[in-house]
This record gives sequence, structure tokens and C-alpha cells, in this order.
Amino acid sequence: MATTTEESETYEQFLEHVRQLHYVGDAGSVLQWDQQVMMPSGGTPARAKQSSALSTLHHDLLTDDQLGEWLDELDDADLDDEQEAVVREVRRDHERAVRVPSDLVERISEASSNALPVWEEAKAEDDFELFADTLEEMVELRREYAAAIDPDRDPYEVLFEEYEPYLGIDTAERVLTRLREELVPLIDDIDDSDVTLADPFEVSASDASGGSEDRRSSGGTYDDDTQHELVEAALDTLGYDWDHGRLDTAPHPFSTGTQFDARVTTRFKPDDPMDAVGSTIHEFGHATYTLGLPQEQYGTPLGDNRDLSVHESQSRFWENHVGRSRPFWDLFTKTANDHLGTDATPGEFYEAANTVHSDNLIRVEADELTYHMHIVLRFEIERDLIRGDLAVEDVPQVWNEKMEEYLGVRPDTDAEGCLQDIHWTNGAIGYFPTYTLGSVLAAQLDHHLRADVGDVDGLVRDGEFDPIHDWLTENVHRHGARYETDDLVRAATGESFTADYFLDYVDEKYRDLYDC
Amino acid sequence: MATTTEESETYEQFLEHVRQLHYVGDAGSVLQWDQQVMMPSGGTPARAKQSSALSTLHHDLLTDDQLGEWLDELDDADLDDEQEAVVREVRRDHERAVRVPSDLVERISEASSNALPVWEEAKAEDDFELFADTLEEMVELRREYAAAIDPDRDPYEVLFEEYEPYLGIDTAERVLTRLREELVPLIDDIDDSDVTLADPFEVSASDASGGSEDRRSSGGTYDDDTQHELVEAALDTLGYDWDHGRLDTAPHPFSTGTQFDARVTTRFKPDDPMDAVGSTIHEFGHATYTLGLPQEQYGTPLGDNRDLSVHESQSRFWENHVGRSRPFWDLFTKTANDHLGTDATPGEFYEAANTVHSDNLIRVEADELTYHMHIVLRFEIERDLIRGDLAVEDVPQVWNEKMEEYLGVRPDTDAEGCLQDIHWTNGAIGYFPTYTLGSVLAAQLDHHLRADVGDVDGLVRDGEFDPIHDWLTENVHRHGARYETDDLVRAATGESFTADYFLDYVDEKYRDLYDC
Repeated sequence: MATTTEESETYEQFLEHVRQLHYVGDAGSVLQWDQQVMMPSGGTPARAKQSSALSTLHHDLLTDDQLGEWLDELDDADLDDEQEAVVREVRRDHERAVRVPSDLVERISEASSNALPVWEEAKAEDDFELFADTLEEMVELRREYAAAIDPDRDPYEVLFEEYEPYLGIDTAERVLTRLREELVPLIDDIDDSDVTLADPFEVSASDASGGSEDRRSSGGTYDDDTQHELVEAALDTLGYDWDHGRLDTAPHPFSTGTQFDARVTTRFKPDDPMDAVGSTIHEFGHATYTLGLPQEQYGTPLGDNRDLSVHESQSRFWENHVGRSRPFWDLFTKTANDHLGTDATPGEFYEAANTVHSDNLIRVEADELTYHMHIVLRFEIERDLIRGDLAVEDVPQVWNEKMEEYLGVRPDTDAEGCLQDIHWTNGAIGYFPTYTLGSVLAAQLDHHLRADVGDVDGLVRDGEFDPIHDWLTENVHRHGARYETDDLVRAATGESFTADYFLDYVDEKYRDLYDC
Repeated sequence: MATTTEESETYEQFLEHVRQLHYVGDAGSVLQWDQQVMMPSGGTPARAKQSSALSTLHHDLLTDDQLGEWLDELDDADLDDEQEAVVREVRRDHERAVRVPSDLVERISEASSNALPVWEEAKAEDDFELFADTLEEMVELRREYAAAIDPDRDPYEVLFEEYEPYLGIDTAERVLTRLREELVPLIDDIDDSDVTLADPFEVSASDASGGSEDRRSSGGTYDDDTQHELVEAALDTLGYDWDHGRLDTAPHPFSTGTQFDARVTTRFKPDDPMDAVGSTIHEFGHATYTLGLPQEQYGTPLGDNRDLSVHESQSRFWENHVGRSRPFWDLFTKTANDHLGTDATPGEFYEAANTVHSDNLIRVEADELTYHMHIVLRFEIERDLIRGDLAVEDVPQVWNEKMEEYLGVRPDTDAEGCLQDIHWTNGAIGYFPTYTLGSVLAAQLDHHLRADVGDVDGLVRDGEFDPIHDWLTENVHRHGARYETDDLVRAATGESFTADYFLDYVDEKYRDLYDC
């Protein structure tokens, strides 16, 4: 065993290397943000080269032999808890990266690039046959990838751990199965309900004596500037820190950045400003997590987020437990009416934000409740594809059968069915479950936040968001990736990850709304 | 000597390395653009780390031993002209980089960072004493840097070659001395002239019967939106390719990018829209050069620009020989009047764009003619500082004496004198001459363009810019850095670099305008 001074020197060299690795990764994220938000279309060929060069350098730094040697030396060193956590996280990434041959990394990257136009054409032509070989190739490549990392384990488990390393595929499977079992009957009851929730935009259009001036065009749509001002007002209301962020538009909204600069993007549907509000608050939630990471740990796992389930818990907390809550609309209705020229009540906005559309076919347009059936379906299909229990050619049929079983609706086309998402085209197999796990965790955190802080509804109604931000920062953000996921949940809530709170929350909320 | 196949393999490996080097450099430029144009203020600490990491990786790739070995192997290889040029350019950069110890690179980088707030305070306090030690340190560091590259040559020559490697300090010195000798009498004659050139903004403000609606605020200023639309119209008029570029604002306007994505920034002075028009056309000129580089050579010196004098020749050509020309204002006056609500004639805008203000103290606000006296002064001072012929403490006095000698005006303060530019604070000593060399080359190219293309004035008046773009691309842009500077000038014009055309051009133009 090395002396303390030697250990300490090794650790410092190791940590400096880790920081460089993170800085290069974050530089790549800036290039991606620019590409999606600012870059003129003609810039693509050069940007592809630049991004690829940074990816290569990042991979070289991560698989560096010297890094492996430092990790070996630190194996027996006398490290404190924080140092142990840093070594654990870096070792995991290093070991996964060195096990995957670089030619396989390149083949996957190339296959993704080639798959994109094929998927786009298949979707435009509504012809799954055009995409089948491409999907088959991606499934094979991902199986090869999983086998390279660990040939002795379930390949889907290995892929899932790319996005959520510590919660365990068993937990994911158990939670998703339970949601399927409990939500399908709830959705059935809602479908059978006679209640029709309010649509404030209908109200305003038909109510000629409405107090405010309707801001819609003659075609009944809202322009981008009006919607931009509305969602900017929502971010102001929630306390977004503009000295450390920006709001822009992008075709597919996302959030990216560091604890110094966490940016949000949104998009506007002309006839549905509620969509932009919800989507913006979702991305704001991601940004709050990033901004809550400790600045002094920037570039290390202690200053980096835990994985996708936790990140999604923050976006879903703000989107659903705040942005879709009645107290939020008590607070925000006047602002919304002012910007939209509507004359709606808080109750009407609240109902509009929570209307269940079980006949909706498209995941990204789904409501808070039926969303998870879209995820369960994708999870079951991609798991079976990777495990070899489902053939690619059978995907459209299985998709449509599951849609009918879970939501009572069957897509007429593959474009509105199994071709709707980009994830598999990108090779992101194992990613979908983290969306639902994030929602489940959001409800668990929400429960304990209320237990600890007290009258959260009152705080939201008064626009006092600091105690909420503070609780989430104290219990989640500031830890970075110090804890494994379940340990983080335990540190924040005193108990293991559980779907109990989520199921109680949706049951109570939606049975109340739909009187069923 | 290696066999052709081996040589060819070596060259391919070498070239792939060179491309990676360029891609990383260009990724760094994207980060810098973002920092100056988009980044929220709080992002600085993380961006500094990201940019520094990319700089380090770029330096590592450039000084790589393997690159040195390839260069040695290619020394005796049987390469074609283009390959020889690539090897020459990379060898030059590699050799300069390996000669400078990395601790010196770091000390210079650190000294620049530390110097910035000192310079800002000294400028705000108007106290050169506060800045003197910092400037002394930077001069010493730059002397050390020059000695590391070549201890046997004039250190100022070595520094100048950082920005303009092939034109030679003798040429620069000869040209600048000649300009001083010939321009000072011309400026004197203009100062003695009774002619007062038109100010279309005065005309409009006093002319209550003007045809258009004045777009100025009650304070007589133009808002940013109005000016943005005006300069956007100027870029449309000149043929800027928006699929490969953007226009944004930045505190210090610049242009950056690649042949796929060359962006322009500008800024707006509320009371002077002509400043924004000139500045935007200047940066557009830089962008045309970048966009004219061959796409298929992206990432190699054949797809990269020749150095700063040539780059500046393109910006100055468009700014001065087009944007300050009478035919341009014949073309653009209606658009300008429409945007500004003025009712000026082309002659009035032309005069406004060319008014000489010899009493102006600030370089970046100088007119086309007196600008060069600001450069001559800086060149003489920085050269003498580096050569040890001038003490730092004497800079303010020498500055003021030269201002009086060359322009007949003496700054009251150092803030408006030797503290006005950021260049020395950044360690950019040897950079200033390239501004004037670029103007000189612009006039030489303009002369030969007219000889080859014919009625350039008619083309500009008709808004037919394609033949002008084509000539510049054919004769300058498409060569990238294939030729050394003087060879490029010779290829484009059939003769060596010369100041004759510039001196004829300004003499004729300004004696005509000022009737002297």
C-alpha cells in the first residue's frame, strides 16, 4: 500500500485527468446546443467533423492506459467517502469504455448516422418494411455492444445500465409492470367517466363578452412571440436564474449545460400554448438540477448529475407536481390570461393541463397519466427485441396490439405507431424506462418535500419557490453523483425507491378530476 | 527514400492528424463565438475550463512527437505541390510550437488573464501607472517567447510572423514608413480644406418637409431593431449566404467560422447607423473569404485562410472599396432611407461614409484615411518596446507626441491614448501592422479586379456582386494557404505586394472629396 503522500499525488493527477475529460465532454455539449439552436443549416458537414473529433478525444481520455493505472493504484488507497465515490464513478465509465472495441463504437456511430435518413423516409412513407433491416442491424449492434461489456449478463440489463446504472433492471421491470396493472383500470374508469374537463381556449373564443382582448390570430392560433413571452413569464415566476441560463427554441426541446450555464429550449404549437408552458417547465426542471450541482466540484462526478432517472425526476417534479397543480394555476392564471387574451379561471387552466386523452397515439403529446403506457409498451418491445424474444418484423403488430390492450386505441399507420420515436434509430435502446422511473421518483420526492417543508401548496400559490428549490438542492442536487441512485433516494427520503407515492398521487388526482 | 506507397500512407496518416488538429481548433472557435454572443454572464468559469482544455489538446496534437516524425519522413518524399504546401504550413506551426516551453505558454496565458482587469481599471481610472508593470511583464514574456522560437533574429520580426508569416517585417516597415510620409501631408491638406462633407442625419432632422418618416427616437437615436434590419438589408444586398452564416450582436464585432458556417457580428451606436453599416460590411468581407475556401479541403491548410493581412484585405475591400464607394450608395440609398426615415441623396451618404476626422483620438472610430496613422504609431511603439529601444514608462509621452506629429491632435488622457486598445493586454504584439497591410492589399486587389472584370462600378450600382465574389474566390479564396503571402499576391495580381495602388486610391478619392 502506498504512502499517504503518494496516494494523494496519484489522486490529484487522476482528478485533473477526470476534470479534463469532463471539460471536453461539456465542450461537445456546447457544440450540440449550437447545432440544434443556432447553427445555419449549411454548417452540418463541418460540425459533424468537429463533434466527432471531440468524441474521439473524449474516448481517448476515458480509455487512457494511464487512467487505468491510476485506478489500480487507488484501489487500495486510503480515500475518504467523496474520493471513493469519484473513483467508483470514473472506474465504471472507464471499464465500460475499454471493453468496447473502438471499431464497434465506430460501427454504431456510423449505423446511427446512416439510419437517420432511412427512418425519416420510412416514417414519411409510412412503411415499416423500409426500416426493418436498419432496426435489425441496430439491435444486433447493441447486442454485440452489451456482450462486449459483459457477455454473462442479460444484454438488455447491460444496455439499461448505460442510462440508469444503479437502480437495477429488476426494479425497473417491477415498477413498469405494476404501473401497467394499476393504471390500465384507472384509465378505463376515466374513459367511462361522464366528466368533460374545461378548455379555456374554447371558452374564450365563444365568450364575446370576455374581459381581455383575445391574442389569437384570425385562424385561432398564437404566434411565437406571444408564446415566447408567456413561457418566459413562467420561468420568471418559477425563479429561473437568467445570469446562468437562456431560453431558445429548438425542434426537439432539451436542456443542456453546467452548473454555471444551464440552458432551456422550447417549441411552440400555434394552437396549444399549454404545450409550450408544460414543455418549458419540464426543461426548467432539468436546468434546476444542473444549476444545483456544486460549483466547486465542476468537472468531477461530485459536480455531475446522477443518471437519467434522477434527472427526469427533477423535470417531472416541476412539470407535473408544480406546473400541473391547482396552486400553480391559482398563481399563474392572471399572467396567462394577460398574455393569451383569455378570460379563464384557475380551475379551467388546471383542468386543461390535466385532461386525459387515452385515444392519443403519440408519446410526446401524451398526458401525465397515459404517458406511462406508451413507455411500458416500448420497454416491453425493446427488451424482447434485445433478448431475442421478438423478431423485428413482428414489431408493428405487437405495437398495435399493446396499444389496443393498454389504451384501447389502435394506430392506423406505423408512422403514428412504431415509427414515431427517434430513439431506436439513434441506438438508444434501454433509455425509455428512465422517463417513467423519473416520474415515479418525482412523486416520492414530492411526498417527502411536503412532509419536510409543510404547506407546499401555499408556497406555490404565493410564488414562494425558494424553500422548494432549497429542499431539492439540499437533498438531491448538491450530492452530484456521490451516491448510487437508490442510496441517493434513501438519503433524500429515508426509504428505498418506490412507486407507491406515484400510484397514490395519480389515483387521487385523476379520480377527483374525473369523479370516478 | 521511402517507396511511394509508404510515402502515401505516411502522408495520409499525417493529413488525418492535421485534420483532427483543425477540427479541435474550430470547436474552440465555436465556444468563443458562443461566449461572446450567447453565453449568460454566469457561464464564464466553466467556459474558461472548457476552452483551456481544448487549447491544451490542440497544443498536444500540434507538438506531438509522432507529427514530428511524419514531418521528418515527408522531408524527402516525392510530394506534389499541394502536398508540399500542406507540409510547409504544418511544419511551420509545429516547429514554432515545440520550441516554446509549455510553462512559458502557460505563463503568457496566465499573464493575459491577470492583465485584463488591471488594464480595465487603469483605463477606467485613466492612470497608466497602474498598468505599467503589467505591460512591462507582457513585453518581457513576449521577448522570451520570440527568443524561444529563434534567439538569433529580431524579436519583433519573430512576433510579427505570428500574424503574418511570409510578407516579411522589412516589407511591413517599408510600407508603414511610406504611408506615414505620404499620408501626413494629405491629411494636412484635408485639414486646410474649406470643404465640409454632408451629414444626411443633420439634413433630415432639420428638414421638416422630408419625404419619409424619421425613424429616430425623440433623443435623435436609432433603436437596435431598426439598425439590425438596416444591416441585414446591407448583407442581403451584398449576397451574404444565410444558409452558411448568421448575424448577431457582440460588444466587439468579429467574424468566425468555417467554409460551411461563417458568422458575422455587429454592434449598434444609437446615434450613428453608418458605423454599424461599415462594421457589418467589414465582417461580411471576412466571412466571404472564409466561405470561399474550398469545402473539400476543410481541415487542411489548403482549406484554411492565408494569414491576417490577406484576411484583412478581404474585409477592407468590402468595407472601403465597395461599402464606402459612390456606386454602392447609388444602389443602397433608397434602402437606407427607407429603414432610417431619412431623405438623403446617394452623394450625401457617400460623403458621410468618407468624412475625415483627423481630430479623432480613437482607432476603432477612425475614418479610412487617418486610421493608418493610428496603426503606424502603434507599430513604432510596440516595435521599439520589444527591441528595447523604448521604456514602458515613456509610452504615454511618445504616444502623445506621435499623435500630435501625425494627426495634429494630442490626447488629454491616457484612456483616450495609449490605454485604448486591448491588444497589448492580450499579448498580441506584432498584430497591428496587419490592419494596414490588409488595406494596402485590398487596394492592389481592387485595381486588378477592375482590370480583369471591367465595369466594377456598374456592377456595384446594379447590385451584381457575383462577378466580384467570383474574381476574389478564383484569385484569392480558393487557394487557401497553398501559397506564401507574396506568392498569393503575385498569383492574383501578377506582381509583388505594393502600396502604390493604395496611395493612388486615397490620394485621388480624398483630394476629390475635399477639393485639395
